[in-house]
Amino acid sequence: MSTPIIRTQIPEGVRDRLPREAARIRRLSGQLEEVFRSWGYREVVTPGFEYLETVTAGAGTLGRREDLYQFFDRKGRTLALRPDMTTPIARLAATKMAGESLPLRLSYFAPVYRHRDRKAGSASEIWQAGIELIGTDSAAADAEVVALACAALAATGLEGIKVGLGHAELVEGLFMEAGVTPEVEEELKEAMVARDLVAFEKGVKGARLAPEKAELLLAMAHFHGDYKQALARFAGVGNGRVARALERLGTILEFLSAFGVADQVALDLGLVRSLGYYTGVVFEGYAPGVGSPVMGGGRYDNLLADFGGDAPATGFALEMDRLLAAMERQGGQGEDGRLDVLVECPPGREVEAMARARQLRQQGLSVEVDLLGRSGADLVAYARSRGAERILLPDGAELSEPAIQRSRAAGFTSIH
Amino acid sequence: MSTPIIRTQIPEGVRDRLPREAARIRRLSGQLEEVFRSWGYREVVTPGFEYLETVTAGAGTLGRREDLYQFFDRKGRTLALRPDMTTPIARLAATKMAGESLPLRLSYFAPVYRHRDRKAGSASEIWQAGIELIGTDSAAADAEVVALACAALAATGLEGIKVGLGHAELVEGLFMEAGVTPEVEEELKEAMVARDLVAFEKGVKGARLAPEKAELLLAMAHFHGDYKQALARFAGVGNGRVARALERLGTILEFLSAFGVADQVALDLGLVRSLGYYTGVVFEGYAPGVGSPVMGGGRYDNLLADFGGDAPATGFALEMDRLLAAMERQGGQGEDGRLDVLVECPPGREVEAMARARQLRQQGLSVEVDLLGRSGADLVAYARSRGAERILLPDGAELSEPAIQRSRAAGFTSIH
Repeated sequence: MSTPIIRTQIPEGVRDRLPREAARIRRLSGQLEEVFRSWGYREVVTPGFEYLETVTAGAGTLGRREDLYQFFDRKGRTLALRPDMTTPIARLAATKMAGESLPLRLSYFAPVYRHRDRKAGSASEIWQAGIELIGTDSAAADAEVVALACAALAATGLEGIKVGLGHAELVEGLFMEAGVTPEVEEELKEAMVARDLVAFEKGVKGARLAPEKAELLLAMAHFHGDYKQALARFAGVGNGRVARALERLGTILEFLSAFGVADQVALDLGLVRSLGYYTGVVFEGYAPGVGSPVMGGGRYDNLLADFGGDAPATGFALEMDRLLAAMERQGGQGEDGRLDVLVECPPGREVEAMARARQLRQQGLSVEVDLLGRSGADLVAYARSRGAERILLPDGAELSEPAIQRSRAAGFTSIH
Repeated sequence: MSTPIIRTQIPEGVRDRLPREAARIRRLSGQLEEVFRSWGYREVVTPGFEYLETVTAGAGTLGRREDLYQFFDRKGRTLALRPDMTTPIARLAATKMAGESLPLRLSYFAPVYRHRDRKAGSASEIWQAGIELIGTDSAAADAEVVALACAALAATGLEGIKVGLGHAELVEGLFMEAGVTPEVEEELKEAMVARDLVAFEKGVKGARLAPEKAELLLAMAHFHGDYKQALARFAGVGNGRVARALERLGTILEFLSAFGVADQVALDLGLVRSLGYYTGVVFEGYAPGVGSPVMGGGRYDNLLADFGGDAPATGFALEMDRLLAAMERQGGQGEDGRLDVLVECPPGREVEAMARARQLRQQGLSVEVDLLGRSGADLVAYARSRGAERILLPDGAELSEPAIQRSRAAGFTSIH
């Protein structure tokens, strides 16, 4: 009989969060929410599932429909767990918030769901915290969003954060310049999304381009550096899309200095994000020792139109689990709801113990009544397991360390 | 073409939360979490979906499988959105937390999902905050959980909260005493769950019981009152289950006095909860003007055994939306992330404005840079829409009220 076994298990790709981890998530969310709020961003909450038509809007060629968890409502319409939060918020902004003053600055804290292959071992439930800035296509907006991502990451206490900055139009312009077929372009972009430079080089070789065209694509995929180097390599390409993208990147980098975060940001012109809706600047954040980006985002000027809206937008999401992993690696502390006081509760003295606990809680203390009627060493061991600093008797007398010692010397029979 | 229409809509039974409501949920969650923590409860987070076998454990005869949102993983195993949080936490407690000291005091903040009929118009996505106390079957534990529910409700600022207290074994004992068939018992319990006294009386009449048996069941379904009245009516029944349940209720009521909440609690012996796993005390909380309970819970001593554990347990869930409705009705205030300062940002002065905003945020203020380059009345109107108290120029000069007045007098052309 396999049912009793599976009943105690959880599906692949999802996780339970025990108290210590849940406390870390709550603390981190609180820190991030405070930063978002101090920049004028307001939280919104969207439903746990949407119509399939909503979540697949704007996903573009790189969104994979088979990665969706799909099910049905009573009328047979297809529902899906959201694979990202940007699309539901675009829907919300274009519909119920259409009458509000622009720009809209919105934030969220929510899990998103992507049905991964079992072999990949990656998470199917991904907790994200993020923001969307809707209603302006300015370089100042692009810079604000990158700077806010940096501020949010700084609030976590993480050190050594690096942000890579690219531009979807620069990539498009260089592919156009190279004159590759749509099939080859698709293949090469997938290699870029996967950061698979070997596959990229192989793809370029297979496309039999003129040497200088192939060289241009390889230079793009490999480019990490500063703005002067980018100008030196790509300004002479003579392609309007490339030139406009370079100019925009230059303005953003200038603004990022005003925000005080320029030293964390470097150009990464081979950056292509896996979601297909980006139209401008794209960026990712990395923490030391964590292989995958802890943050990612970019500009998506056409997504709201899919919901009958008409507003340019940009935003980012932080990956909570990767952030927590990076924080753990850097020695970030985790507490899990330590107790201030444990009140002993011998049988028959419940009323006294409960009244005592009530009084202590009114003083702002975190207090447990020991409901198992423990005494002596058992009580002390339980208090230690809960991190309690003090043990009180129902009458308020403190169980002092010497009393605990005596109780031990007496063979754990009594603490009095 | 219907696709563009459905894409902008959300499924039936779920809701978007705009900033004001999201802020109220965040504030309420924070208040509740603080109360739970001060009583020694630690938050846990379980996955957004479970195996079907997990969520249907312990649901008993009253759990409705057709109310589940079900879907499949890549191996064809059935997954489901959780219809309650008690079952996933029972799974967690019986497995990953099996080695920890008892009792376990755990809390959660999460949506649960119940696929309602469209006609009912009720919510399919239900945000809950709750606790579970696992590892003791004492009356003190029963009392702690009811008292904590009262403390949590008090922390919301709601007035006029009433808690009804019943006992599953008292109901079982009285049905046994009346000698009804299992079919009739099922039908009568469903009427009790629905609080449908007309259907209940009709069912009793149809069962053709002896008059004193029928009278006993009607007295149970109708009973609201204090402990003396309950003893007077039911102590003479001479049924062991009824007697033990009455005794337990008496002890709990005594303990609730020690917790200082006895005046909010009354016996409601016809209380039967819709989830089938309750084995002892059950209770519900009501707020003035909200027809459905804002809180409900009870003892479930057999649920952990379904996951290979062996521990009695009790707990409750607060219904966040009903609480917010009750708070709104009592004039509870809602703020949605009011801004402290709006920094004007004329074209070409972005760097200055961003540096100014950065400086103000470092002082702990909530600050927006106006990214649409507004001036004059437009800027003032936007500042008002965001609740901003001050408008600053990039150089830090304050836009004073007289300046705003002058700008208006001058026909909105300039604020200087």
